[in-house]
Amino acid sequence: MRESIKPEAAVSERVVYTYFRSSAAYRVRIALNLKGLDYRAVPVHLLRDGGQQHQPEYRAVNPFGLVPSYREDGRTIRQSLAIIEYLDECHPEPPLLPATPFGRAEVRQLALSIACEIHPINNPRILKYLERELHVDEAARLAWMRHWIGTGLQALEALLEDMGSSGRFCHGNQPTLADCCLVPQLFNARRFEVDLSKIPRLIEIDDACGALRAFQDAHPSKQPDAAM
Amino acid sequence: MRESIKPEAAVSERVVYTYFRSSAAYRVRIALNLKGLDYRAVPVHLLRDGGQQHQPEYRAVNPFGLVPSYREDGRTIRQSLAIIEYLDECHPEPPLLPATPFGRAEVRQLALSIACEIHPINNPRILKYLERELHVDEAARLAWMRHWIGTGLQALEALLEDMGSSGRFCHGNQPTLADCCLVPQLFNARRFEVDLSKIPRLIEIDDACGALRAFQDAHPSKQPDAAM
Repeated sequence: MRESIKPEAAVSERVVYTYFRSSAAYRVRIALNLKGLDYRAVPVHLLRDGGQQHQPEYRAVNPFGLVPSYREDGRTIRQSLAIIEYLDECHPEPPLLPATPFGRAEVRQLALSIACEIHPINNPRILKYLERELHVDEAARLAWMRHWIGTGLQALEALLEDMGSSGRFCHGNQPTLADCCLVPQLFNARRFEVDLSKIPRLIEIDDACGALRAFQDAHPSKQPDAAM
Repeated sequence: MRESIKPEAAVSERVVYTYFRSSAAYRVRIALNLKGLDYRAVPVHLLRDGGQQHQPEYRAVNPFGLVPSYREDGRTIRQSLAIIEYLDECHPEPPLLPATPFGRAEVRQLALSIACEIHPINNPRILKYLERELHVDEAARLAWMRHWIGTGLQALEALLEDMGSSGRFCHGNQPTLADCCLVPQLFNARRFEVDLSKIPRLIEIDDACGALRAFQDAHPSKQPDAAM
């Protein structure tokens, strides 16, 4: 049997459309680093040129005009949690989800609590609508951010407490999908000076994550587009 | 060896904390019906008694004060997508996610686009904040809803088009997690009279879902708490 050499069978380049301060892109960078997977970052500047995410070239990649998007083998995945689950299925070590269905549900409920209940409400597009369409002033926009991030993180702390399955990280003693979401959300909370005094467990976990190279290298300040 | 009879080893009752009009609870009802799984519905009325979801008894179940929550074997899962993934892992037939990692990523990106980018922004708690804290009048609140649901559904239609993997349903010819999310979002869109003229594929898929008993039985109008 003749061997055929197909160029497309080679390990394809991984591309992440990212913005250094995007909380959702930050999640994917952490996951890629935890898996030890190389990727090429394509910066999409959310504030420059009226928002590069709105340009037709990027809308063709991501119709929602949001980062991140992920490309591999000519195929695109949008939505940070879908990307991370995909990476976890294709590259199982180290696992980002526990081995049991209930354990996975626990981690996913934490990740989704951040991704659905905290982050989207404080997205730049929401703040822009509050400003331009509803004429909400800067102080009230900041109060909005602090309210949703603050109450959301307190509910997350209570959820974590109730679950009783956290250890050094959100679930046990290895980083999971939940930690990939927590750290960017806390970066965001600090940026907007949200009161963090009522979430001591989350802060402890954030510190544990911050000691790992995978999290350090994914930090917004370390991204090539941070200085652009 | 002596056999011990543990009552808790019996098939446990499934409990769903639900509200008939909650889009997230509606997703879980569809999934349970597609799997043919019985459950007991515990209604949490989001408007009565100042919002039953805020009462301490319910906050103990769900610290975010949101529906749905799911209980089984004395353990609780919050977040509709985490619940549905759990049901799919424990009861694989019929599958609500495709067999390949990329197929699953495609379905999850659709589901997450609804669960993260459309639904949370139009949640009752957001509308209440707009009204009470920012004094946004009813017409502007309705415009807010129509903007985020309308533009979100149009982006979803474009995403579906780009993916090219839809069939009778969002992904191929069997209902998936994506359809569990789409149908409640379209119910919500119609309730607020969002313009649906630009999303013909989503409407076709919604019609296909509506022909199935699992979707019909999960409809808000069929829930015991609808008349309460």
